[in-house]
Amino acid sequence: MALPAEDRVTCAVLVIGDEILSGRTQDTNTRDIARYLGVIGIDLAETRTVPDVMEEIIAALNALRARYDYVITTGGIGPTHDDITADAVAAAFGVELEEHPDIIAMMTARWTGELNAARRRMARVPVGGVLVKNPVQGPPGFAIGNVFTLAGVPQIMRGMLEDVGPRMRGGRPTVSRTVRVEGSGEGAIAAPLEAVAKAHPDMSLGSYPFFGAEGYGSNLVLRSRDVGQLVEVVGELIAALKGAGIDNVREVEVV
Amino acid sequence: MALPAEDRVTCAVLVIGDEILSGRTQDTNTRDIARYLGVIGIDLAETRTVPDVMEEIIAALNALRARYDYVITTGGIGPTHDDITADAVAAAFGVELEEHPDIIAMMTARWTGELNAARRRMARVPVGGVLVKNPVQGPPGFAIGNVFTLAGVPQIMRGMLEDVGPRMRGGRPTVSRTVRVEGSGEGAIAAPLEAVAKAHPDMSLGSYPFFGAEGYGSNLVLRSRDVGQLVEVVGELIAALKGAGIDNVREVEVV
Repeated sequence: MALPAEDRVTCAVLVIGDEILSGRTQDTNTRDIARYLGVIGIDLAETRTVPDVMEEIIAALNALRARYDYVITTGGIGPTHDDITADAVAAAFGVELEEHPDIIAMMTARWTGELNAARRRMARVPVGGVLVKNPVQGPPGFAIGNVFTLAGVPQIMRGMLEDVGPRMRGGRPTVSRTVRVEGSGEGAIAAPLEAVAKAHPDMSLGSYPFFGAEGYGSNLVLRSRDVGQLVEVVGELIAALKGAGIDNVREVEVV
Repeated sequence: MALPAEDRVTCAVLVIGDEILSGRTQDTNTRDIARYLGVIGIDLAETRTVPDVMEEIIAALNALRARYDYVITTGGIGPTHDDITADAVAAAFGVELEEHPDIIAMMTARWTGELNAARRRMARVPVGGVLVKNPVQGPPGFAIGNVFTLAGVPQIMRGMLEDVGPRMRGGRPTVSRTVRVEGSGEGAIAAPLEAVAKAHPDMSLGSYPFFGAEGYGSNLVLRSRDVGQLVEVVGELIAALKGAGIDNVREVEVV
């Protein structure tokens, strides 16, 4: 369920890489970005994963940047032939790539090896783009228009993200609370949950069942941009569940 | 880099759920599906994640099912109000939902609790759809046209997948080999790698760098549908790397 459009700031993630689509690599960047954005009040609205194919990257990027406030791309900015993200972003914006003097200077200062053609590839930035700091290792990312192009390696991506957030117009942060029900399945929970959800259409209420050695039940997650409303509706939901004969229910902290 | 269109069978994954976009849940279904499909020779060509919003699900599903041979959806088939995947799939195909008598019979036989409205929601299947077996727990998924609608809970999703593969037209399986380079960065590897990649445009060659306590280097992954070609090009790549002065290179098994 979407939060109301009022004050909503949206972002999409475009994951670029054959290694994700082949199942070789488990993407974790999307979740890291989602959590980072949540804290600064921006909604991750959609994600896509595309292969290392120029026209696929361009088409997805153009669709996403037209529709959402921001787009973050991950992957494909290294020095090898399959790293074509910079080329694709430039093509999507209809601009050329140019070697950025700050990156060449950084490479020359830090690296002892030859500044060969492959390494110079990583210094290319679309004309009009600005750099995104890389506090971890290797060359920076870049931003152009409403698009931020970051590395795919998770620790580098997370480092770059710290330089992206401050450049985004943050919405009001969304706050969440979790109500945990144990020993009752979703079939029993659904009616009282739905009644509360329908009474508050401007909030998000989700049910996330669990089962296993620890028993079974469901975590009911309430999200709102209004903390006062959130506290009130948590009480309302617990009352509704108890009214339906579901007694093993309490608010919990989820880390 | 894409494999040649000849004999290529494609599938997209559509992940449905606010819990993925909020960062609350780490999606692992995409990777499981990618690996499952790889073994039966089908390429995962694109993935998207959309929120629990009817029009978003419908639009993404219609875009994907028109473009790829198959689409697998995950999530949103439980009994609660935010489980709207069946409604969205039916709407995308322009058909109604109906209670499937086999699911009602299964629920009646297995469950002791009341068959209430929430539980009956899970018996709804688009008209013209067929069931996908659920060997784990709860009601089945369904298939309609070229779309397979599976649960979001990973262990249930994996169980359902076993009933999906046999209904797909498999392509020729893709085989992969990995050449590991240690002590050389991508900047040094790029030129010989690109030369070999350009000589074999019908294959996929990717470079996946690693660094950390174990040292640094890159795994070069070669993929082809032709095992003979693969073995030959692995030899060619190792020779090209050694010719460029990169000596710590060998073929490895990747699990």
